[in-house]
Amino acid sequence: MKIEKIPSFLGTLLLSTLALSAAPAESKSGLPRLSDYIRPFVGTQGEGNTYPGPSAPFGMVQFGPDTETELWETASGYEYTDTSIIGFTTTHLTGTGIPDLGDFLFMPQVGEPSLVPGPKDNPDQGYRSRYSHADESAAAGYYKVKLQKSGATVELTTGERAGMMRMTFPASEQASILTDLHHILTGKKWKVIWSHVRVEDDSTITGFHLVSGWARERYIYFAARYSRPFDKFQIYSDGNPVIYNTYRFRSSRDAVGTNLQFVASYKTSANEPILVKIGVSAVSAANALDNLDSEISDWDFEKVREATREKWDHELARIEVDAPQEDKETFYTSMYHAFLAPNIYQDRTREYRGLDQNIHVAEGFTNYTIFSLWDTYRATHPLFALIQSRRDSDMINSLLAHYDQSVDHLLPIWSLQGNETWCMVGYHAVPVIVDGLLKGVKGVNVEHAYEAIKTTAMNPDYDSVATYAKLGWVPFDQEDESVSKTLEYAYDDFCVAQMAKSLGKKADYDYFMKRAGNYKNIYDPSIGLARGRDSHGNWQTPFDAHFYDDNSRSNVFTEGTSWQYSWYVPQDVPGLISIFGGRDEFAKKLDSLFTFQEANKSAGVDDIQGRIGEYWHGNEPSHHIIYLYSYAGQPWKAAQRLHEVLKTQYGNKPNSLSGNDDCGQMSAWYIFTALGFYPVCPTSDYYVIGSPAVKRAVMRLSNGKTFTMTADGLSDQNIYIQSVRLNGKDWNRPFLPYNELKNGGTLAFTMGPQPNKTWGTDAKIPE
Amino acid sequence: MKIEKIPSFLGTLLLSTLALSAAPAESKSGLPRLSDYIRPFVGTQGEGNTYPGPSAPFGMVQFGPDTETELWETASGYEYTDTSIIGFTTTHLTGTGIPDLGDFLFMPQVGEPSLVPGPKDNPDQGYRSRYSHADESAAAGYYKVKLQKSGATVELTTGERAGMMRMTFPASEQASILTDLHHILTGKKWKVIWSHVRVEDDSTITGFHLVSGWARERYIYFAARYSRPFDKFQIYSDGNPVIYNTYRFRSSRDAVGTNLQFVASYKTSANEPILVKIGVSAVSAANALDNLDSEISDWDFEKVREATREKWDHELARIEVDAPQEDKETFYTSMYHAFLAPNIYQDRTREYRGLDQNIHVAEGFTNYTIFSLWDTYRATHPLFALIQSRRDSDMINSLLAHYDQSVDHLLPIWSLQGNETWCMVGYHAVPVIVDGLLKGVKGVNVEHAYEAIKTTAMNPDYDSVATYAKLGWVPFDQEDESVSKTLEYAYDDFCVAQMAKSLGKKADYDYFMKRAGNYKNIYDPSIGLARGRDSHGNWQTPFDAHFYDDNSRSNVFTEGTSWQYSWYVPQDVPGLISIFGGRDEFAKKLDSLFTFQEANKSAGVDDIQGRIGEYWHGNEPSHHIIYLYSYAGQPWKAAQRLHEVLKTQYGNKPNSLSGNDDCGQMSAWYIFTALGFYPVCPTSDYYVIGSPAVKRAVMRLSNGKTFTMTADGLSDQNIYIQSVRLNGKDWNRPFLPYNELKNGGTLAFTMGPQPNKTWGTDAKIPE
Repeated sequence: MKIEKIPSFLGTLLLSTLALSAAPAESKSGLPRLSDYIRPFVGTQGEGNTYPGPSAPFGMVQFGPDTETELWETASGYEYTDTSIIGFTTTHLTGTGIPDLGDFLFMPQVGEPSLVPGPKDNPDQGYRSRYSHADESAAAGYYKVKLQKSGATVELTTGERAGMMRMTFPASEQASILTDLHHILTGKKWKVIWSHVRVEDDSTITGFHLVSGWARERYIYFAARYSRPFDKFQIYSDGNPVIYNTYRFRSSRDAVGTNLQFVASYKTSANEPILVKIGVSAVSAANALDNLDSEISDWDFEKVREATREKWDHELARIEVDAPQEDKETFYTSMYHAFLAPNIYQDRTREYRGLDQNIHVAEGFTNYTIFSLWDTYRATHPLFALIQSRRDSDMINSLLAHYDQSVDHLLPIWSLQGNETWCMVGYHAVPVIVDGLLKGVKGVNVEHAYEAIKTTAMNPDYDSVATYAKLGWVPFDQEDESVSKTLEYAYDDFCVAQMAKSLGKKADYDYFMKRAGNYKNIYDPSIGLARGRDSHGNWQTPFDAHFYDDNSRSNVFTEGTSWQYSWYVPQDVPGLISIFGGRDEFAKKLDSLFTFQEANKSAGVDDIQGRIGEYWHGNEPSHHIIYLYSYAGQPWKAAQRLHEVLKTQYGNKPNSLSGNDDCGQMSAWYIFTALGFYPVCPTSDYYVIGSPAVKRAVMRLSNGKTFTMTADGLSDQNIYIQSVRLNGKDWNRPFLPYNELKNGGTLAFTMGPQPNKTWGTDAKIPE
Repeated sequence: MKIEKIPSFLGTLLLSTLALSAAPAESKSGLPRLSDYIRPFVGTQGEGNTYPGPSAPFGMVQFGPDTETELWETASGYEYTDTSIIGFTTTHLTGTGIPDLGDFLFMPQVGEPSLVPGPKDNPDQGYRSRYSHADESAAAGYYKVKLQKSGATVELTTGERAGMMRMTFPASEQASILTDLHHILTGKKWKVIWSHVRVEDDSTITGFHLVSGWARERYIYFAARYSRPFDKFQIYSDGNPVIYNTYRFRSSRDAVGTNLQFVASYKTSANEPILVKIGVSAVSAANALDNLDSEISDWDFEKVREATREKWDHELARIEVDAPQEDKETFYTSMYHAFLAPNIYQDRTREYRGLDQNIHVAEGFTNYTIFSLWDTYRATHPLFALIQSRRDSDMINSLLAHYDQSVDHLLPIWSLQGNETWCMVGYHAVPVIVDGLLKGVKGVNVEHAYEAIKTTAMNPDYDSVATYAKLGWVPFDQEDESVSKTLEYAYDDFCVAQMAKSLGKKADYDYFMKRAGNYKNIYDPSIGLARGRDSHGNWQTPFDAHFYDDNSRSNVFTEGTSWQYSWYVPQDVPGLISIFGGRDEFAKKLDSLFTFQEANKSAGVDDIQGRIGEYWHGNEPSHHIIYLYSYAGQPWKAAQRLHEVLKTQYGNKPNSLSGNDDCGQMSAWYIFTALGFYPVCPTSDYYVIGSPAVKRAVMRLSNGKTFTMTADGLSDQNIYIQSVRLNGKDWNRPFLPYNELKNGGTLAFTMGPQPNKTWGTDAKIPE
């Protein structure tokens, strides 16, 4: 949490009470609907990098306000402490650490229209406008704000591929709606390479831009229909009106270039609403228009909002929890965030833009994009495998389509709208695919999937995988972040092996299980931690186990320290325990992690918060670590730390998220943890029991079964497991076998204020 | 003709004898095939702006050498007097005055590959290579040259959507084939906005660039297969190798950017041929690959060449002529040039990129592009209406598709690969459509066509058409080139009226016939010539009837003088004769046109040659003028001037064309003129008889009928018509009614050395 950004504790409280919940229509029963618990502002302040605007579950459109285009700390375009809104754009990333998107800005203005946003430190210039959180609200499928500059109120809602904007204007001779095709979230680096805009008729425009950003070659199109024909319109290019030219005719109805704006002008009466609905497509303007017209056929704003709200009710009902209001808000907002990405990336026609920039038709699946796999393989996709099986199948097929389109014959690393960003390390599409398939996800060609995961793991070029396969580790003299890569490859290889095993491919199983043991090669027995090793087998010297520098080319870890990464052997925690000298030593070492302060002073760690010593919950390398106590037979220590994190790093406030939500991974951690178990090793056949944080939860598994968790006696004090009954039997091991979950059943915790140190000491991993 | 560019008369003769004809395979009969008469070098020297490389009839690929990228005088990329070749590219414009295209350069190299072309004045630098015309040859579907720098011989052939390149290398450890995606014909102005390239496998690449050129937003893709897998390959971006990067992986197998090159490297043995076949598409790389694989399935270079040659034999057989070898070469090369454009612009899948940049499927027609309408409405399309009716139908449907996709609801003015260039004036898609439909072209929705031509003629914005409709002329104080526009609009309006008449739309007929008379409003009786008039009715002052300045914003004429444009009333020559004071005065005035020298000194006329006084055959405004003698009852004067032009401004040599071929208009003029008649007023029901230049011609009309022209006694001296028999009847009028032609028949001229001044004096236009 960036505490320094909160104006005052009182201010935050006040804001949360007054402004954070829009007044949604009540359900027919008069009872709250699950979607009512969604708090879209959660994570918009500080490092969460979420956005407050409306989105359908996994929607292609994320319609929302942008307050910032350059800062990576505001990668979603909206920071709660910013005091001005630039405009409203149709696409956003949720919780990433790198900005992109922010396509197609729409902004109402009154008076002489401005074509440039103006500086953030002087919101009186340009088209940007000051606003107050008191005039702002957000709910499932809905966002509203009053703009102080124009006096116009803007409301947003959205369907899957098209959004709608209702602007309520004051009376004005000079009201206008700007479309700025030049606006994107630049992160100070990205550029609009080309764009065009066309005035199709007196109330319809279409347009396009090609952006070289984090996604290096990204094409996106839009179509916008206006509820009122333009009184007049004007296209601008580089600030100049595109007008009739008597030397040689040039149409005033379309333009191309790198810096285009369109202004629709109106004379408005007081409180006159003008609506704009906007469809998007990565394929063509024609498809954007088709997406728009097929999804939003009329001008009924409330109908669109209600349809999306119903979608959220439906999605959230996959887990019903019993908890206090605030915890329910936190829980369902976590589900909301977990279900924002990956995003549908195909048109109504099933066409989508592939990694090869060809237009493909998704046959037999729905194509998704935005796979933040280094994050989401950990808990998000394992959650999908249980309760979003159909979508997980589509996502796996999307990963395979990417593989088919890759000149490198690689599954995605971090894929973004028809592009590979090569962001982060490992080949974590593998655990996503294998976990899904082993958990019963249907509709995937398993042989094709196996070919893709094996080919990816055997790639001759990617990040020294070939050297690793030969040598047993990634040598730091040949490859950056070599220790993290070694550890993550070894885990991914374990996943390939599990798939090979399930297919009866014995030789492959043996081969990849051998590679899964490669982690052992980079633990230096002299210090008992993971350490860089060169191609000759020498340990990296000098070596500081608390060293962190994400920008250093000599770093052998990926956004982490040796002390953080040394816990990363999810596929063989007993092996790691053995390296560390047994359970007690292991647990003692783990205790110490929560006390170190050394790395906190390192360069480049500002954007990783949520720190308890050197346990940094704000970034993924720490996410599984607390659960390792259970492997050591000391689950009560996990209980204490888990509740500490749940209570201090999550919540229902804008600043509640301690780190980048990373396309839902932070939130998926919350969901699993609140339910009392977590997938420390996705693709394995067990989960690790931690300590539940909701009194009761009913999971509607995708196979139609229902799994119910109860936490008898749970309270803020009663966080320790006293006993467990699993499917009616006493259960003493701190693991939940998938076999006990998959057919539905019950997991009944009895909670108390003190650890029952006899429970969970039998830490043998289920076979 | 740019005489100064010819090294010597002898040199030219020698070159034409030695190098201009490649040795084609003989026909089975041993007799020459019609395609043997094609001389692809005609027009490549000086102002003709043709290209020597191979193309299928109306093909999408024009594969040829580029020697120049910047000069507008070399708009096709190849100038015969240039001494070095930059490389070989897949697309070219034929005979235009403005450069564009030149997409996807391929060039063999030996030694360290260069990535930049190097300067024209020092061909030893860069990848460009000197060559000799002695080592160069071209024929239908074939081009060959030896490159002096590498010693490699390059041969080119092409199908419709894919070309093939055979490079015969010397022995080298370091042979390579460069693909430069940055190369285009820039005309000093155009830019590659974006590009990407992908190495699909060990012998296949695909790529793309977006070019903002004369066509302001043009997307084109390619796919290339190599006959030999690369020994190694390397992509370059901005001159730097795209390589593996240990910080974060970046694939070496693909790249994006504005300046990309790809180098395929080989160790070659002596005389080793390596072939590359290349498909193109405006839709996608996938379609380019599909176009390639479906059209050229193997590596048989001769098969591709022969198939295209057969296509040319088939197309040329639409008119069979009896003439001396040189005249046959000129005639069939003219047909070749007339059949190079417009170009097929759709993939095998029938997909094409529309004016709206959406991908459309051509349903029920074949989509064409490159409509140089201000030129080609005059003779090229009237020729198509007679002997290329199916293609003319497709072209008309392509014009209508453009109209449907236009935000301005306008038919094309000058359309180029999914773009409108707004080049030149008028709305001459109208005569193309109307002439086609009235001449019996089938497969067009006539009501749709009428809606398009009328809507275009009624456009409220385009080039003061609305003012013209109201005022009766285009006022020079509101619009440039106002007199030319008035005259051309009036003619186009006549064409709309003819269509209205055929559809029984009496009110429209009356309205547009009234507009067709608007030409009268800009003839100043005090000087007896067309003159600028302002919105108050005042004549432009001062006024110089020989003034020419294409770059002047105050010019009231389009690439012409008042003395040239004053003859432009094709729809009512008798009316013009009346304005000019009767036939004798008219003919006398016409005589004087061929003697004026004043305008020859004007600025900006260098690229318009073919001058006889102020008759400048090198540009279209003069093309109909000689035939006006026939309207004055003095066809023998036409005969003399026509033969003068035929003999001095056409031929079989590189420098034979006196002006831009303009997508075949110069050549179509030759064809009609050689046959003895010309469409002075397309959409009318008659042609004007001039004086034939071939002894016998058999036209195979598209309706299956055969029309035979004979010129008894024709010789270089016997150029005057003594008598005519039309379909067996004596015929004394210097007009050929369409009704006498359309059912087939015979037109028999008897020629003599002196004018028969009694023939053709009855100059009443057929009803």
